[in-house]
Amino acid sequence: MLTYTSIRELRERLREWREANPKGKVGFVPTMGFLHEGHASLIERSRGENGLTVVSVFVNPLQFGPNEDFERYPRDPERDAAICGRAGADLLFAPDVREMYPKKTITKVLVEQLTDRLCGASRPGHFDGVGTVVSKLFHIVQPDRAYFGLKDAQQVAVIERMAEDLNLPVEIVPCPTVREPDGLALSSRNVYLTAEQREQAVVLNEALGKAEEWLAEPGIDAAGLRERIVAYIGRAPLAVIDYVEVLTYPDLQPPDSVAALHIGRGSRIIVALAVKFGGTRLIDNRIFG
Amino acid sequence: MLTYTSIRELRERLREWREANPKGKVGFVPTMGFLHEGHASLIERSRGENGLTVVSVFVNPLQFGPNEDFERYPRDPERDAAICGRAGADLLFAPDVREMYPKKTITKVLVEQLTDRLCGASRPGHFDGVGTVVSKLFHIVQPDRAYFGLKDAQQVAVIERMAEDLNLPVEIVPCPTVREPDGLALSSRNVYLTAEQREQAVVLNEALGKAEEWLAEPGIDAAGLRERIVAYIGRAPLAVIDYVEVLTYPDLQPPDSVAALHIGRGSRIIVALAVKFGGTRLIDNRIFG
Repeated sequence: MLTYTSIRELRERLREWREANPKGKVGFVPTMGFLHEGHASLIERSRGENGLTVVSVFVNPLQFGPNEDFERYPRDPERDAAICGRAGADLLFAPDVREMYPKKTITKVLVEQLTDRLCGASRPGHFDGVGTVVSKLFHIVQPDRAYFGLKDAQQVAVIERMAEDLNLPVEIVPCPTVREPDGLALSSRNVYLTAEQREQAVVLNEALGKAEEWLAEPGIDAAGLRERIVAYIGRAPLAVIDYVEVLTYPDLQPPDSVAALHIGRGSRIIVALAVKFGGTRLIDNRIFG
Repeated sequence: MLTYTSIRELRERLREWREANPKGKVGFVPTMGFLHEGHASLIERSRGENGLTVVSVFVNPLQFGPNEDFERYPRDPERDAAICGRAGADLLFAPDVREMYPKKTITKVLVEQLTDRLCGASRPGHFDGVGTVVSKLFHIVQPDRAYFGLKDAQQVAVIERMAEDLNLPVEIVPCPTVREPDGLALSSRNVYLTAEQREQAVVLNEALGKAEEWLAEPGIDAAGLRERIVAYIGRAPLAVIDYVEVLTYPDLQPPDSVAALHIGRGSRIIVALAVKFGGTRLIDNRIFG
């Protein structure tokens, strides 16, 4: 595996590869590093579907709010490179902030509507930063396919819609969330958790499992479902709820009726959670239908 | 020359061409149609510099305000095709609004700062529409070079900055304004002018010529220059000034001193005009330095 920190040199390498493989496909896995098995599963999938797999590791300052964890976001470049290599990446792109933003960007890529709920409401400006950096990375790598984990289901919805609206020549491939044996969704932020918080954090996945059972009850509506989930999460004394939402997917709108909650009618429902344990905010979700 | 109305079919053709010409370059001339010699000069330049030249003709509703001339904007598809063919275009892409916007776009590409002056101030939202459609067209055609006329100098500045900020893999090539023998800048909107308005419209180019003389005077400042230009345009009784501005280029900021107006110090100055004749708004500019 080759590692690049320069946009120019990465592009040069990609150009050579494409000239040598005119029908070859490029798969791309954009990440913020501190990789885990969730990321590895994306890289392995790309490896299986494309002739060349590029992984980027870039902690994007633009998508962090002023009081968020940009500075202390966990980083481990050597371990990241080892995981990429083992999972089958061909090229690792790890630019620094100056390479990506040599001057302040005054261009923004915004996806309206989808970004005013869930993490967009809790983290104003977050998805503008995501849309902008993902556009930049797509323009640098020019992949045929890009792989994103469904743990960030709203991010997947936003990027799919951005790609559709802007005619991006890339197929967005959403991939299932990878979990610990006890059900906790893998996240780079899990390292922040104390032993006690870590133990209680399983409540997110358990609540989503319960939600699936409750959704099967005839007549249940979004507000009722939400109330039961909130109560269930309340069992974990250290959990502080940021949001619990029941929305249509991928439009992220409130379901308009009880019937809309019931599956197999063409529309999908997402139950999405953000819960804080101390200073650590965890998200999880399940999509039904 | 082949004409396409379908994005899918155009992409298919481009893919075939690239596979057959792996080192070939694609030049692109995006237009709103009703082509004139200004557009033809862009197409000819692209033809000379690239293996394949694509022209798009699309009147983009997103860049027109609610009270602007989208519906009555002049259109002549047959004449456009003839001009493209004569100027040496290989592919003409002429989609309808449904092909470009099958659903309402909720994704916007915004360039801040550069777009709050000049035509951005007179036409709120205009450049958001330009940035968004140019992104879309770039993603559809994936050109190596794109050609824009400097008559819309602010548009060139906005697109250059967008390309830089978003790492668009395209070289933006600004091209000189083409003029009538009497100096009027060519514009699709010139057809709206009555004979009397047409005669008086030369005042824009004349005022810019005077500006060049006045700029040579030691000690002249932006406000003084602006005042003289406004007075000069006042000689044309039918002219109603929308704006006269003296700004740095391409940053479009007010020059900070008399010295900044004087050329050859690395910074450039734009004198930009928008003047209405009846319902027709004409723009022109000159860049110094």
